[in-house]
Amino acid sequence: MQRQKLVVNGERLKQELEAFADYGKTINNGVTRLSLSKEDRLVRDYFCECCEQLGMTVKIDDMGCIYATLPGVEDKPPIVMGSHLDTVKKGGRFDGVLGVVAGLELVRTLVENNIKPKVPIMIVNFTNEEGARFEPSMMASGVLSGKFDKQTMLKKQDVEGTTFEQALAASGYEGDITNRLTEAAAFLELHIEQGPVLESENLSIGVVECVLGMVCYEIEITGESDHAGTTPMKMRKDALFATNTIIQKAREKLSAIDEELVFTMGRMNVLPNIHTVIPNQVIFTIEARHKDMNVIAEVEEIIKNLSSLAAAEGCAMKATKQWGRDTVWFNERVCGVIEKATQNLTYSYKRMVSGAGHDAQFIASYVPTAMIFVPSLNGKSHCEEEFTEWKQCEQGVNVLLEAVMQLLE
Amino acid sequence: MQRQKLVVNGERLKQELEAFADYGKTINNGVTRLSLSKEDRLVRDYFCECCEQLGMTVKIDDMGCIYATLPGVEDKPPIVMGSHLDTVKKGGRFDGVLGVVAGLELVRTLVENNIKPKVPIMIVNFTNEEGARFEPSMMASGVLSGKFDKQTMLKKQDVEGTTFEQALAASGYEGDITNRLTEAAAFLELHIEQGPVLESENLSIGVVECVLGMVCYEIEITGESDHAGTTPMKMRKDALFATNTIIQKAREKLSAIDEELVFTMGRMNVLPNIHTVIPNQVIFTIEARHKDMNVIAEVEEIIKNLSSLAAAEGCAMKATKQWGRDTVWFNERVCGVIEKATQNLTYSYKRMVSGAGHDAQFIASYVPTAMIFVPSLNGKSHCEEEFTEWKQCEQGVNVLLEAVMQLLE
Repeated sequence: MQRQKLVVNGERLKQELEAFADYGKTINNGVTRLSLSKEDRLVRDYFCECCEQLGMTVKIDDMGCIYATLPGVEDKPPIVMGSHLDTVKKGGRFDGVLGVVAGLELVRTLVENNIKPKVPIMIVNFTNEEGARFEPSMMASGVLSGKFDKQTMLKKQDVEGTTFEQALAASGYEGDITNRLTEAAAFLELHIEQGPVLESENLSIGVVECVLGMVCYEIEITGESDHAGTTPMKMRKDALFATNTIIQKAREKLSAIDEELVFTMGRMNVLPNIHTVIPNQVIFTIEARHKDMNVIAEVEEIIKNLSSLAAAEGCAMKATKQWGRDTVWFNERVCGVIEKATQNLTYSYKRMVSGAGHDAQFIASYVPTAMIFVPSLNGKSHCEEEFTEWKQCEQGVNVLLEAVMQLLE
Repeated sequence: MQRQKLVVNGERLKQELEAFADYGKTINNGVTRLSLSKEDRLVRDYFCECCEQLGMTVKIDDMGCIYATLPGVEDKPPIVMGSHLDTVKKGGRFDGVLGVVAGLELVRTLVENNIKPKVPIMIVNFTNEEGARFEPSMMASGVLSGKFDKQTMLKKQDVEGTTFEQALAASGYEGDITNRLTEAAAFLELHIEQGPVLESENLSIGVVECVLGMVCYEIEITGESDHAGTTPMKMRKDALFATNTIIQKAREKLSAIDEELVFTMGRMNVLPNIHTVIPNQVIFTIEARHKDMNVIAEVEEIIKNLSSLAAAEGCAMKATKQWGRDTVWFNERVCGVIEKATQNLTYSYKRMVSGAGHDAQFIASYVPTAMIFVPSLNGKSHCEEEFTEWKQCEQGVNVLLEAVMQLLE
């Protein structure tokens, strides 16, 4: 017997996304909803209210994560979906919230069609994914998966010196450790791509296979500060010129490895930074991401070998690894379910990678997990211009629903 | 009749330089004596006392410059020497003060030898040469020569909001406009080189022919900020990568013009300067100096033609000229006198240029002027390590004395 063909209500989804965007709305139609701020507390209240109206049970864990559960026919581990409601400062209306509101729309569709799922359906809102108020990002999912130490996280402070622990207590969203997500049939996170790939290839859906491994180095080039007017070129030890040569070579070598490798020198500080003084120090970062950790290893090798270029310009180079993380591969079965769901809906799609980090990468360590991407206009996120067509949001939620229906079978 | 062969007292010179270095001495044996600070006031008091003990008349002008005059046989325009007593923060014990203390030692030598000069001998201390407390540098000599507007200068503020006018009044060194240096037979400024040329060529004296012309541009490269993890390399508009390409090409082209050209990219700021975000803006300076203004014109042409490189990387470039100044050629007769004096003393020397700015370049506009350089250890100045061998200081003052004796003939 073929099961009922369900699709979500696009207009209702849009209205709900707009309603959520009112919490922390900026004058340029963006959102500032820092974790555990007043705006975050109010959107959490609203979210809980929506869930309870649908007959869901709401529980809170000790990191402030919200779990809303629609009971299943059988009391088995739930199928979980969700993301996060916090944003960066002057962020957008889609990053995070889409994955939570998608869960609401999915449950609404089930409820209005009188479908009682075989196993419980759970929507989760992870606390402090962005790390914009309290570093690091993905804090709560990091604690849940044992990647971060809870006591250390509780002591993290925002710029005003408020600790995460204080902010959590003040929010009224400090719950019990026994409510943590510990097992689930699957976790699916619908999210905006935050990159330009789907849009540029004119595709509706990304079936996300992994979150890229990455490495970040801080490079310190030391030369000598001399007077810009009195020091002949041949007698200089110019740290900026040495840096320039190093970046040129690094670009050339890194570009040759693999076209999927992304690398960025995003932060650079020049000292003493005076126009009439030859720079004696430049500190900059090289950050690279790729799914294949062998490629990342090659990147590290290239970085280490750059120091001879500094020496050739009379300077010294010190490369310090800031951090690295391995590629997180999502569950192939869950990826397959999402792909099948997309095909059933005849949406255009591709299997792809996530260059950005997500709660899903931590949850994947103990729950079969995968992600669904929808396009980001001009690849933009973490800004007020962040946008995904309403139709594309709707398609994303339809894929989520279709995938859940398949998992329920 | 051959005149008496005079040389200065090296030990007395050293002791006096050390005495002056006590005013504003830093723990690392440097000097912090910002213009019109308490330390500057005290060293001025001491300098005036020394001059008066030698029978010199001390006058102060409306910019706080001190003029100490040893009367001549004839009341004619004086032969003037001097420099400045102010320093940068954590500066050295030689920059500026050497030229003033040299004057003292010269007069002491004349007085102890009962030589009454044919024309007056004047020592000058110019106010605020460094511009370290009140910008711009060479403020007083700039006003004297009509390059700077006095009323504008009086309103210049230090970091604490004190105006130059207030600081001058508080110092007790606000004198009369009628005391300004308006005419002189010659002006000679003995100064440390502040560069490595004399030391590296193992020479004692530099006969300075000019102060280099220069030009300074601010270059603004604008690209697009995108997520470092999610934006494929081919779709980036990375302002830092474009800057890197531009600096590489600028270095290559500027290096090819003339080996005497010096150029520096001393200041660079990257935005948003976050390791996980592709830079959307880089602002940096290109500053170049050369004695031949045709070379400087070539530099400007090269800078203007760099914008196509930015375009090739999807970025825009804006080049704004911050300022430029022409080469100041010193008086050839005075240069010749200094050269002859050096030869008479059988010191090793070369004719050279000054890459740094000095009060002499402004005074040169209305007084026959030239400069004498002595070596700087490792080419360093404006730092606590600044050093010139005592013997080299002595030789510099001997050249000054010998040149003055020639001018007196």
